Amino acid sequence: MKRIPFDEIQKELTRVLLAAGLEISKAERCALIFTQNTCDGVNSHGVNRFPNFVMDVKIGTVNPHAESERISSFGAIEQWDGNRGIGPLNAEKAMKRAIELSRGNGIGCVGLRNTNHWMRAGTYGLLAAEADCIGICWTNTIALMPPWGASEKKIGNNPLAICIPRSEGPVLLDMAMSQFSNGKLDVFRRLGRQLPEAGGYDQNGKLTTDPDLILKSHRALPIGYWKGSGLAIVLDLMATLISGGDSTKEISQREKETGVSQVFLAIDISSQVANADVDAKMNAIINDLLNTPPLKGTQTIRYPGQGMSNTRRENLEKGILVDSAIWKTILEL
Amino acid sequence: MKRIPFDEIQKELTRVLLAAGLEISKAERCALIFTQNTCDGVNSHGVNRFPNFVMDVKIGTVNPHAESERISSFGAIEQWDGNRGIGPLNAEKAMKRAIELSRGNGIGCVGLRNTNHWMRAGTYGLLAAEADCIGICWTNTIALMPPWGASEKKIGNNPLAICIPRSEGPVLLDMAMSQFSNGKLDVFRRLGRQLPEAGGYDQNGKLTTDPDLILKSHRALPIGYWKGSGLAIVLDLMATLISGGDSTKEISQREKETGVSQVFLAIDISSQVANADVDAKMNAIINDLLNTPPLKGTQTIRYPGQGMSNTRRENLEKGILVDSAIWKTILEL
Repeated sequence: MKRIPFDEIQKELTRVLLAAGLEISKAERCALIFTQNTCDGVNSHGVNRFPNFVMDVKIGTVNPHAESERISSFGAIEQWDGNRGIGPLNAEKAMKRAIELSRGNGIGCVGLRNTNHWMRAGTYGLLAAEADCIGICWTNTIALMPPWGASEKKIGNNPLAICIPRSEGPVLLDMAMSQFSNGKLDVFRRLGRQLPEAGGYDQNGKLTTDPDLILKSHRALPIGYWKGSGLAIVLDLMATLISGGDSTKEISQREKETGVSQVFLAIDISSQVANADVDAKMNAIINDLLNTPPLKGTQTIRYPGQGMSNTRRENLEKGILVDSAIWKTILEL
Repeated sequence: MKRIPFDEIQKELTRVLLAAGLEISKAERCALIFTQNTCDGVNSHGVNRFPNFVMDVKIGTVNPHAESERISSFGAIEQWDGNRGIGPLNAEKAMKRAIELSRGNGIGCVGLRNTNHWMRAGTYGLLAAEADCIGICWTNTIALMPPWGASEKKIGNNPLAICIPRSEGPVLLDMAMSQFSNGKLDVFRRLGRQLPEAGGYDQNGKLTTDPDLILKSHRALPIGYWKGSGLAIVLDLMATLISGGDSTKEISQREKETGVSQVFLAIDISSQVANADVDAKMNAIINDLLNTPPLKGTQTIRYPGQGMSNTRRENLEKGILVDSAIWKTILEL
């Protein structure tokens, strides 16, 4: 691992994206999102995934010249087609539009179909929170898990972000419906370590903490067993209906994941509860949580997004922590 | 257990509610909701909880004469005060209002504060689906679980319902953020059975499948460990902000659970995707799930709400299955 300044990473990623054929404004914007994700400690959807993204542009899975366009509009809800363009830029534009819609309506919703992987769900939640909105967004994905009781992967891990603005830093929940992502399973496998809790099934259908067995069986475990399985299913159904797009079933018939469906919701908090001292209320809730006695002596209780805020501060101060081998790969792109 | 016709249960519950002081229209409406919940197999929030509800009316936790009222309005989003009235009727009115708001705006949202337990989350999701809307609603509760890593209960189990309309019957996810409800833990304890998966901690902070130890420690497990804990926290924060009401922290300072905060969202599907063959798409997704090979030989894969639909059909045909002792208690109320 090594530490590299924010600007240096952004500049380097911009260079690579320009070489891959993106126009300058898109290259800069896209590089910024990848750099921010890394700065927030989400390397799996930052620099670690960047070479893969560049490959997707080169082979045409991602069309860098496509622009998303509005297909239909009804009051505070709109459907957009991503035209298989750049996932993070399509998603950013969709959440910005949901925020705009919330300004006049209190709440705004955009369904985005036919788009590509947005990298980190939290990116678009944070965008809403910066605009004084609660941001809720989710995406469907290619099939990654079996539904509860089944042996074959059929449901996506369908990441969901919920972000709530607060003067002392947003509260951000950013979670996939699998107990552990494939990226996390791979990290544990490389370290030769067992998972802290069961994360899926082995080939014989027995729950296991062995990441290698889960990656081989393609049977990752949904959070809360039947509950996360059900939540993944309804998130897919809603993304499909609201965007008028493809479901996990249809996406999984393609060789590579593309043409996914996403939903972006923004709720304008400034308009709704202007009279209440919202911030003081939030802080009281958060402080109460932080002051709960830990289960084990040294543990600390954290609120969703607290780890990210700490990592961001440290990375901005000391340089962003990146894997040396991955950085070398990027320099050679 | 015994089977009793739908009408007989509704009539009996109406009689008890009239005796408890409800006016006729409220008594009938409220009895209908309790009967429907039982008919759908959710006895824990149907007849089983009915004596408790009547007691809440008698001791004044629930004010049967209070009406909810609109406090503020901004576009497609409104805040209502439940005035500590009847939880199920306040919630029904709030979802109906969210549906109305969605008619002109595509999406509608109502935050309801200062209300009482709504019994089953799914009731209000189903209401939206019957009106051709996606229905999403959740409530906060008194503290029931420790946040992840903590030893004291501080977060609610904050039930969430998501319901999607479909001609062959709605898809309904209705889930609390705890892996098992207290009601479910109690059922297993009475039967002297272990839980199928770990459901909480013993007094020493060790995960256990023993329902008795979990009920004693007050340390129920959130779904997906840290993930369900985070989801419960953000659902509470959002309910508090959107309704302008009390959080789990404030509710837990009262002797009994009252004055909870709820959110109701309706998305008008008929307006949004009128051109797409939505129903065929939904059925294709559902059928694909149902046809997934099971993990074990005889298991069947189900979609969220399928069990409920089957139970409803059987109960309507043969009479609703209720606990004989509970029915005897109700007859004596």
